[in-house]
Amino acid sequence: MTGADYIAEFLWKKGIREVFLITGGACAFIVDAIGRHKRLKYKCFQHEQAAAMAADASWRVHGKVGVTVVTSGPGATNLITGIACSFFDSIPTLHITGQVNQNEKLNYQGSRVRQAGFQETKIVEMVKPITKYAVQVTSGKQLIKELPKAFERALGPRMGPVLIDIPMDVQKENVGRRIILGSHPQEFKSASEFKKAKKQISRFFAKTERPLVLLGAGSGLSGGTKKILTWAKTNRLPFVASWNALTYFDHRMKNYFGHIGVYGNRGSNFLIQNCDRLLVLGSRLDNRQRSGNSSNFARNAKILAVDVDGEELKKYKNNSHFVKGIRADLKSANQLLPKIKWNDKKQIWEHFCLLMKKKYFGKNPSIFCAKNKSLSPYDVVKKINSFCKQNAVVIADDGANLCWVFQAFLCSSQKLFTAGGNSPMGYSFPAAIGAAFYLPKAQILAFTGDGSMQMNIQELQTLRHHRLNVKVIILNNFGYGIIKQFQDLYFGGRYHATGHGYSQPDFGKVASAYNIKYKRISTLSDLKKADFVKRGPMIFDITLDPNTQIEPKLELGRSLEDQYPYLSQQEYKQGMSFVPSNRRNL
Amino acid sequence: MTGADYIAEFLWKKGIREVFLITGGACAFIVDAIGRHKRLKYKCFQHEQAAAMAADASWRVHGKVGVTVVTSGPGATNLITGIACSFFDSIPTLHITGQVNQNEKLNYQGSRVRQAGFQETKIVEMVKPITKYAVQVTSGKQLIKELPKAFERALGPRMGPVLIDIPMDVQKENVGRRIILGSHPQEFKSASEFKKAKKQISRFFAKTERPLVLLGAGSGLSGGTKKILTWAKTNRLPFVASWNALTYFDHRMKNYFGHIGVYGNRGSNFLIQNCDRLLVLGSRLDNRQRSGNSSNFARNAKILAVDVDGEELKKYKNNSHFVKGIRADLKSANQLLPKIKWNDKKQIWEHFCLLMKKKYFGKNPSIFCAKNKSLSPYDVVKKINSFCKQNAVVIADDGANLCWVFQAFLCSSQKLFTAGGNSPMGYSFPAAIGAAFYLPKAQILAFTGDGSMQMNIQELQTLRHHRLNVKVIILNNFGYGIIKQFQDLYFGGRYHATGHGYSQPDFGKVASAYNIKYKRISTLSDLKKADFVKRGPMIFDITLDPNTQIEPKLELGRSLEDQYPYLSQQEYKQGMSFVPSNRRNL
Repeated sequence: MTGADYIAEFLWKKGIREVFLITGGACAFIVDAIGRHKRLKYKCFQHEQAAAMAADASWRVHGKVGVTVVTSGPGATNLITGIACSFFDSIPTLHITGQVNQNEKLNYQGSRVRQAGFQETKIVEMVKPITKYAVQVTSGKQLIKELPKAFERALGPRMGPVLIDIPMDVQKENVGRRIILGSHPQEFKSASEFKKAKKQISRFFAKTERPLVLLGAGSGLSGGTKKILTWAKTNRLPFVASWNALTYFDHRMKNYFGHIGVYGNRGSNFLIQNCDRLLVLGSRLDNRQRSGNSSNFARNAKILAVDVDGEELKKYKNNSHFVKGIRADLKSANQLLPKIKWNDKKQIWEHFCLLMKKKYFGKNPSIFCAKNKSLSPYDVVKKINSFCKQNAVVIADDGANLCWVFQAFLCSSQKLFTAGGNSPMGYSFPAAIGAAFYLPKAQILAFTGDGSMQMNIQELQTLRHHRLNVKVIILNNFGYGIIKQFQDLYFGGRYHATGHGYSQPDFGKVASAYNIKYKRISTLSDLKKADFVKRGPMIFDITLDPNTQIEPKLELGRSLEDQYPYLSQQEYKQGMSFVPSNRRNL
Repeated sequence: MTGADYIAEFLWKKGIREVFLITGGACAFIVDAIGRHKRLKYKCFQHEQAAAMAADASWRVHGKVGVTVVTSGPGATNLITGIACSFFDSIPTLHITGQVNQNEKLNYQGSRVRQAGFQETKIVEMVKPITKYAVQVTSGKQLIKELPKAFERALGPRMGPVLIDIPMDVQKENVGRRIILGSHPQEFKSASEFKKAKKQISRFFAKTERPLVLLGAGSGLSGGTKKILTWAKTNRLPFVASWNALTYFDHRMKNYFGHIGVYGNRGSNFLIQNCDRLLVLGSRLDNRQRSGNSSNFARNAKILAVDVDGEELKKYKNNSHFVKGIRADLKSANQLLPKIKWNDKKQIWEHFCLLMKKKYFGKNPSIFCAKNKSLSPYDVVKKINSFCKQNAVVIADDGANLCWVFQAFLCSSQKLFTAGGNSPMGYSFPAAIGAAFYLPKAQILAFTGDGSMQMNIQELQTLRHHRLNVKVIILNNFGYGIIKQFQDLYFGGRYHATGHGYSQPDFGKVASAYNIKYKRISTLSDLKKADFVKRGPMIFDITLDPNTQIEPKLELGRSLEDQYPYLSQQEYKQGMSFVPSNRRNL
């Protein structure tokens, strides 16, 4: 086998069924090998960025490593924004970049020129800050060694993207026939360490009256969610969730009390601020959760974080709210989580949790839309939510549309995700294309904005070519709504580069050019279930008031429970029942 | 002034008139400051990649530094492919990226987490391999110091792109009112060094009978082309050119004998192989010029290279064809280039040069199209060439369309360029948009391919919104022609991911969706001058045979003069007149 044939067969044996790619000179041998492979398939995209985002969806929709193959130089650099999505959200992906023949630079005598071979680019160096592992192989022997290693690194805790750069001469090299698959990384804790951790959690909850669990994405990425939620239910523990955890459980669970954060549910944020013990399972508690004013986060509680990444725990070391964290992989949740006995006073807390849930959970009023008599994006999301099949994959993009979807959508068994940490404009549409390739029978919905839709609009061709079962829902606020809300607040409503200077195409005409069904929605009753359950692509252009707001939203400097639109003093007080009055804001 | 105001005023005082941008949270203060600036203008793009490519066109069309402003994370990483265009082609550009507030990571205690602030990305580290200078500023004081420094680095020899990453708190900081502009970098050679270099060139040509000058892009980037060409004319020196030099002179010059390289003119390549002295002025002699078989390049000659970048000269140190190079900025060409006296035998060489020119210069036969009775892209380019005004800016993309345009287009005073070293798909269209913003009165032509057009197709909205005077010419060969030619040669015509799997939209319908005039061209007579001289945007979709070839083209391993389609032995012999028969290929 050549190096290129080896790659194709290796991928197949690792369970990969589709590779996303754009061909080019430096990866042509790999593309040809994939093309000649009897079972491995490839799908062509129109821009490498979209291929990387589509591959990022792989783990999120069916738990397999997404793979791209692209050429050197611009082919490789075009992947970068997509790779960053996988890195920040701990998604395992493998990116294979072709590189120029090694002999092209042999006669450069070690001089540090900007470029040796044509389109030669130091992609490995460039992606180091956003990959778990990136390497250029220089021989067939090294290729055989590095492929399984890269896979192990991608899947080993904490997961993430990897990149292998493969010169053309290695693609052509005869590498023999023996495939080395490597092994899956093992748990890194011993039985005695597990025992110790279990004791620590037990002690943590020993005297608590107001316990709370925060479920993070790590619970799902590790495969531990089910064990954790069974434990939480058995032990009568209320839990809230981070946005990236929302895809892993049924939101109708009785002990689930909503998602937290800057754009989180008011009720859940109140629980965070009132609890006395917060157990964080697999969440990095980023600034969109703890807010910029992070010292106020869970300010009446002790916090214990369990994370697979020791660096994430180190950051708490001088924060007096945090007790020493536990480094562990939550796939071993059973070995970590103890049986807990509660104090009788906990019933008061349970009562409060239910009150907060009753008041705020699943409620998504838009004061702005009510006042302006305009279409509420929350009502749109809820109505579309009701059209969703059990197998639906719902992907949100960034900015306002992301907030609206994540604030209002409730999952039963649907998948719901976004590229949370990187949050690029234009992620959801190519990710939906990827999801549709991986799960051709599923109902796939991509929520996006009018600005974001333009970022990867070229992929309408991919959508149309394969007639994929993707519904694109543009929550059209006529230009970067989340920035307009920021401009209202800080720039006296000067809409530079949003209201002014920005423009959008007629999406109806664009859809028609690509022969894709299109519907403009201006009232709730325009949304018909039939459109959403029928197979095939369709675009919904939902026209909102250009200034439609995200509600609630935490403004800079405020503490987590004090979101805009501001509550009455009475309502605020009720939400802060367990917080001494000198530690409240109002 | 705030840091943001300072940036706007600094740019204006540095002669910048337009900034290309997409707004976002982390750059919103800078965008607002530019918006409030009385004279500095901004233009919104639909994807940062396009903004970077448009900015790259700035120096190429009017000798000013192109500037972008984008937000952190994906905004910044989206620039990368465009920045690489500037780096490999020595184009000065300035990229300003917003970054999250520094306090967002203050409480991370130095832990090495993947991401601290929302959308925080190590952009400075990532672009180091493709920028001359990249820095994150941490205070207003540092901003004031780094802005002029970055400008100087961008413009200092060898030019290139720079990036400054500016946290939001620095954008908001009060930095006072005094603007520090910095100075333009000075020449680095002393008078005695110039004298020595002059002597060296004099000696180099002392006994030559077959001298040749190769004009590289450095001659033009330095501003030295005019001086060089006056010198060459006065001293009766024949010259050939690299592709990136073609934009700097009138191709009708009598002592110009064509462009060289893998896809170069046969006649010019013969001159390279027959000359006994080759003076290389500002060309890095990359592998598309010297070919993969670079030891055969100018194999009967001594070569003397003048380059501003010492690293480019170092690479020749063990190559016996090269004499010690001269490190100098060609803007000082007058001080470098000596008067030369010729041997009488030189007339034989002049006669040969003229013969090669007569046979090959401006001749662009397509044996493929003649045989298939299909439309020749060469005839298309020549006809459009005849429609070009003196102020036209002609930009080619990559792959086959690039080759066809550069092989056949002859400039008088037009500008003709491409992103030569990086050569991404999709460069020419956004670069043309940039050119049209910078030179609103010029006739702007963007040649591209059907695959490449899709890469930045979102910018049709920018084109339409501003009704820019850009003609987009799609040389449509239905999928990655240059790769198909490669697949014919090495993969027995298996068209994976080119003929098979790849698809394209109906460009006519897409143009119409964006309200842009469109014309499908299937014969030469469909091309009308009136369409090209009329103001406003228009798309020409030129349908070629899917297998249309690039002719001539050097195949792997061959030496420079031995291009496909292969010449008869007799014709080859004539071209190699001065090469001893034992050093010819046939």
